[in-house]
Amino acid sequence: MTFEVTILGSSSAIPTAERYLTAQVLRALERYFLIDCGEGTQIRLRQMKFSFERIRNIFISHLHGDHFYGLPGFISTRNMMGIKSDLHIWSHSDLKQLLDPLLDHLKEDLGFRLVFHPLNFKKPDQIYSDEKLEVWSFPLSHRISCCGFLFREKPVLPNLIREQINYYQIPVSQLRAIKEGADYVNENGRVIPYSQLVYPPVKPRSYAFCTDTIPLDSVAEFVRDVDLLYHEATFLAKDEAVASQTFHTTAPQAARLALQANVDKLILGHFSTRYRRPDPFLEEAQEIFPNTALAIDGARFSIPLQKIACQS
Amino acid sequence: MTFEVTILGSSSAIPTAERYLTAQVLRALERYFLIDCGEGTQIRLRQMKFSFERIRNIFISHLHGDHFYGLPGFISTRNMMGIKSDLHIWSHSDLKQLLDPLLDHLKEDLGFRLVFHPLNFKKPDQIYSDEKLEVWSFPLSHRISCCGFLFREKPVLPNLIREQINYYQIPVSQLRAIKEGADYVNENGRVIPYSQLVYPPVKPRSYAFCTDTIPLDSVAEFVRDVDLLYHEATFLAKDEAVASQTFHTTAPQAARLALQANVDKLILGHFSTRYRRPDPFLEEAQEIFPNTALAIDGARFSIPLQKIACQS
Repeated sequence: MTFEVTILGSSSAIPTAERYLTAQVLRALERYFLIDCGEGTQIRLRQMKFSFERIRNIFISHLHGDHFYGLPGFISTRNMMGIKSDLHIWSHSDLKQLLDPLLDHLKEDLGFRLVFHPLNFKKPDQIYSDEKLEVWSFPLSHRISCCGFLFREKPVLPNLIREQINYYQIPVSQLRAIKEGADYVNENGRVIPYSQLVYPPVKPRSYAFCTDTIPLDSVAEFVRDVDLLYHEATFLAKDEAVASQTFHTTAPQAARLALQANVDKLILGHFSTRYRRPDPFLEEAQEIFPNTALAIDGARFSIPLQKIACQS
Repeated sequence: MTFEVTILGSSSAIPTAERYLTAQVLRALERYFLIDCGEGTQIRLRQMKFSFERIRNIFISHLHGDHFYGLPGFISTRNMMGIKSDLHIWSHSDLKQLLDPLLDHLKEDLGFRLVFHPLNFKKPDQIYSDEKLEVWSFPLSHRISCCGFLFREKPVLPNLIREQINYYQIPVSQLRAIKEGADYVNENGRVIPYSQLVYPPVKPRSYAFCTDTIPLDSVAEFVRDVDLLYHEATFLAKDEAVASQTFHTTAPQAARLALQANVDKLILGHFSTRYRRPDPFLEEAQEIFPNTALAIDGARFSIPLQKIACQS
């Protein structure tokens, strides 16, 4: 039941000796979502031993090269590996025509179906849903069309405590209602609170990814209460003017947004190469939002399962 | 007066945790030639601290993705760095139309002139020449059009031994002939051999790059006597049938070619990911051609200056 983000690359537009370009894997309940795919992503995936077969859904925030130049190599390698499962890519609709000449040139037919899904840059949009998870895109504000992504577990009904159900001889017809929160009232009018009949339910986990963008109130609203927020912090406070001019965010701005959105934990990344060390990003953010961490290539951030106390 | 090859990547079609895709830098007398540019090349250049500004000439052997998918990122980063010097790319003429959609999409004009030069896949061709160096392309035989490259210093006339010139009171009008190998005969008919008048000349250094290809007699002929030969060895001897089928070379075939061409040293690379360790490549090759080394990411191969004994 893992819900874990792995940072493959954390640099901004230009890679450094230590930082690859933007790419992350969200492993959520055995689904492996690739988020952005800067140059070198396939190499990082190989280094970190991720299965190319398991990556079937890719989410591309925007069409600046540092966020998608890794796609031709990833697709081509996935093909050479003989993988047959469909590959879905959510991105700006221009992506297909940018990649087509390179993909056509492979000259070998792709052994899998490659499905492009255009993003909506005007308003939040549910772009993926299965029995356990959903993914939303939501507009960011950058120099070109850009989306953030919100990954969220669907609520799961709590498990019944078998021994209690048997003990109170509760009929099967009542079980669904109990799982949904109803107390049980037996023939004699005795009330058995549902908290005695079910295990504590688990809280649906959530992760939001926001890069590249200026800080937005609408984003704080949309990602409210997420467990983990990745937000770009390309600049330090002293360079707020440059941040604003280039449609990026500073470390304190990202921290204020995390506070405003009441998230549990904040990860900062996409640091400009103008700064030699990333520590000041952490210092500036933690003054405002203490539970902040820095995206470092190879870092993993897990969200543990959390039980919710039953109200009864 | 460095003449040195640096291996940026040495894997075949698919990268591994330890091996990037094909790319090399030849540093020759302060020129920095980039040879092939697989995905991740810009990252390797940053890691190994090569200047993007100094790379002004790129040679692309063929248009399989593992040899050129690093170009969009390299070009885009070179532009973001504000570099103004021209960038020349020698490749198959299709390259421009493959890259154009991505380059057009940068939306910012390139700050440097990007010049595409089509290769001739029919016969050897001098593609670059300056006062000290020349570069030749020559046809290889792969599944698609492919060229090797030969980098060669131009012969330099030896330096005069000033003290000797003064001692024998040799007139300026004679100096050119002496540098070119003539002995000096003075008024009294005394012969001063030119070996006493000049420092020993240095041997022009040379490097040949051959990937991807089957082994070819024409290549052995064309790269005859080079100091350093990089030749692909995608397969071991036991997989010679696969090598032939996929238009690649085995380690013993590459070694025989090195022997036939009378090269000084052989480097093998482009190992298939089907083999776990590269050591057997070295063992198989050294049985035939002892002065063989393996291309390992980050390895550097220098060709020292060598004096030629004057004949007199």
